[in-house]
Amino acid sequence: MDYETPQFYRVMQYAAGADRDVVDMVSGNPDWDPPEAVREGLREYADADASDFQYAPSRGLRGLRERIAARHGVETGRIVVTNGAGEANHLAMTAGLDRFSGREILLSDPVYPYYAGRANFLGAETRFVPVDENDRLDPDAVRAAASPETAVVVLNSPNNPTGAVSDADAVAEFAAIAEANDALLVADEVYDRFDYSGRFASALAADSPNVVATNAFSKSMAITGFRVGYAIFPPADGPAGELVERATTRHMLTNVSGSRPAQHAVERAMETTDASYYEAARDRLRARIDRFCDALDAAGATYTRPDGGFYVLARFEGFPGTFENAYRLIDEAGVAGMPGAAFGEARADDLRFSLTTPRVDTAAERLVDYFG
Amino acid sequence: MDYETPQFYRVMQYAAGADRDVVDMVSGNPDWDPPEAVREGLREYADADASDFQYAPSRGLRGLRERIAARHGVETGRIVVTNGAGEANHLAMTAGLDRFSGREILLSDPVYPYYAGRANFLGAETRFVPVDENDRLDPDAVRAAASPETAVVVLNSPNNPTGAVSDADAVAEFAAIAEANDALLVADEVYDRFDYSGRFASALAADSPNVVATNAFSKSMAITGFRVGYAIFPPADGPAGELVERATTRHMLTNVSGSRPAQHAVERAMETTDASYYEAARDRLRARIDRFCDALDAAGATYTRPDGGFYVLARFEGFPGTFENAYRLIDEAGVAGMPGAAFGEARADDLRFSLTTPRVDTAAERLVDYFG
Repeated sequence: MDYETPQFYRVMQYAAGADRDVVDMVSGNPDWDPPEAVREGLREYADADASDFQYAPSRGLRGLRERIAARHGVETGRIVVTNGAGEANHLAMTAGLDRFSGREILLSDPVYPYYAGRANFLGAETRFVPVDENDRLDPDAVRAAASPETAVVVLNSPNNPTGAVSDADAVAEFAAIAEANDALLVADEVYDRFDYSGRFASALAADSPNVVATNAFSKSMAITGFRVGYAIFPPADGPAGELVERATTRHMLTNVSGSRPAQHAVERAMETTDASYYEAARDRLRARIDRFCDALDAAGATYTRPDGGFYVLARFEGFPGTFENAYRLIDEAGVAGMPGAAFGEARADDLRFSLTTPRVDTAAERLVDYFG
Repeated sequence: MDYETPQFYRVMQYAAGADRDVVDMVSGNPDWDPPEAVREGLREYADADASDFQYAPSRGLRGLRERIAARHGVETGRIVVTNGAGEANHLAMTAGLDRFSGREILLSDPVYPYYAGRANFLGAETRFVPVDENDRLDPDAVRAAASPETAVVVLNSPNNPTGAVSDADAVAEFAAIAEANDALLVADEVYDRFDYSGRFASALAADSPNVVATNAFSKSMAITGFRVGYAIFPPADGPAGELVERATTRHMLTNVSGSRPAQHAVERAMETTDASYYEAARDRLRARIDRFCDALDAAGATYTRPDGGFYVLARFEGFPGTFENAYRLIDEAGVAGMPGAAFGEARADDLRFSLTTPRVDTAAERLVDYFG
């Protein structure tokens, strides 16, 4: 796999150039509105004193970090605000490679391509653990693959692309596997507001010094362009207590600090956005999942209904998830999905459909017409 | 030198805890207003469609890149918009280490500590070239220090902390030295709007495939907190044409993209901010330089009048620029400057005073009283 080419763009560009109407189910950009307080926060910031236009602290605005800490029930000192979940994962993965023994990063297959691309770019070895028949990452399979060579285990729950959600028992096992192999569990929880199963448990619940949890407001507040995320490092007084300092240094030497208008707007939105905003987003997606899965049944597809996140992985008999078939589906059915081959080998026959479009029904009808 | 500790903060914190009024001449944060169009751009963005709140292209908003390209007379494809000049320098320095032979980074002494910290963090060797008696980096000294081991030469003009400005002949020589040693000249031109001498020349004028120019709006638009900068890589069809692609990949795998509200506001400000804004900022600083240098004369200090930038390096007889003396100056004179020792050895006896405070006159009087 060539992780360095932005494969998402290849498919999106093909869809944009198609000679017909195409429903874009490639990108994972939310299509709904951010909380109104995000907009208010920007307006308020626009009128701030000139001094508020200068550097935020490297670790992020204090008030924002305090709200994040309160949400997760951790000390503020453990939090570094980052340039989205992307930088949070970058800092967490490099921290794991620097601090723990081994040069290997354990990833699920299928995998969100950025993890593998980052691992390659950092010069780490990668080892892939195929998900089970329910599209879940099985702790036993991770335990069997882990070794002293393992420096980092990456868990993404709720998962992109499978929609699987790891429960409290599973995350405790993943943390224990990391501890047993002197490795770091990097738990990317960026879809944590999109759990439909009620099973989601944060890896922070494992209360392990070998866990870094990463997250962002990109998906939960529908602001992928703002680049406000964070990593929660182990407690400073514990065995891996230096990680937060080292990550701060790396963050500082790379980016100095994050963008302040965006941080200010998110801080304001955290202050005033209540549970109903997130519930409405979940309701919207639940309804889309229902309708899309009904269509998949009608089209004779094989799939696992997602427990969380935005995506559905589906397999159509005799139509493996190659780039060629993704292009064919664009041209012949007017639906753009992401080839499973872009996510590894275990689900290379599948296509990934993102439900972040108001035109899920149109896409569903087209798939039934085409495959049904 | 311990570059990983944010030494600026140590001094600022000491000043904040002092038992008296202190004029802060430590931080390089502009104390004047951003262009009004920055504020308008944020207000406008606050009302944008939800789709405008999603990822900007990794290389930056197209319109912003086009305006940057037009300003510098280069192709848009050479530009990567970054998280401030910090990330631009990070991408340029790593590109130089990856692509060119040698593991050594050549830096001036005194040096802006972030360059040295970044070099250490990247595992590169550093070699320091002391500036000449006029605080300028002499091409002959750089030529003598350069070797096949040199991968990167960093030039910062106008310079922090010396205020020196390199003219067209000097930058052409630095580019030729980079070419002769299979190295990359990284020219950080973030203070290019603050040239009082008329001598400043961009390293882009050397028209060399061995040059990356970095810049940002942080200082020129008084928005250090926005984190909008850029790097201009060699032409894609030239001998180092792959640098822009590799840097984009690194940028993508670290940050995905930059913060869009900030990029939008800067794009709008580039559109409507005319030369008078920058001229007013220069006039303000010229007047501060005049008054502060008069005071330095009265205080018996040794210094070079800055040709550009925000800073004055000054030496007081019998009062070397240690941290201890910087703290003493805070307590006894009520002026906070940055110890020269934080910038290396060549000017370790000096103190650096930032002119980004409306209280330059108060500081000047206090220094005359204390030393005069």
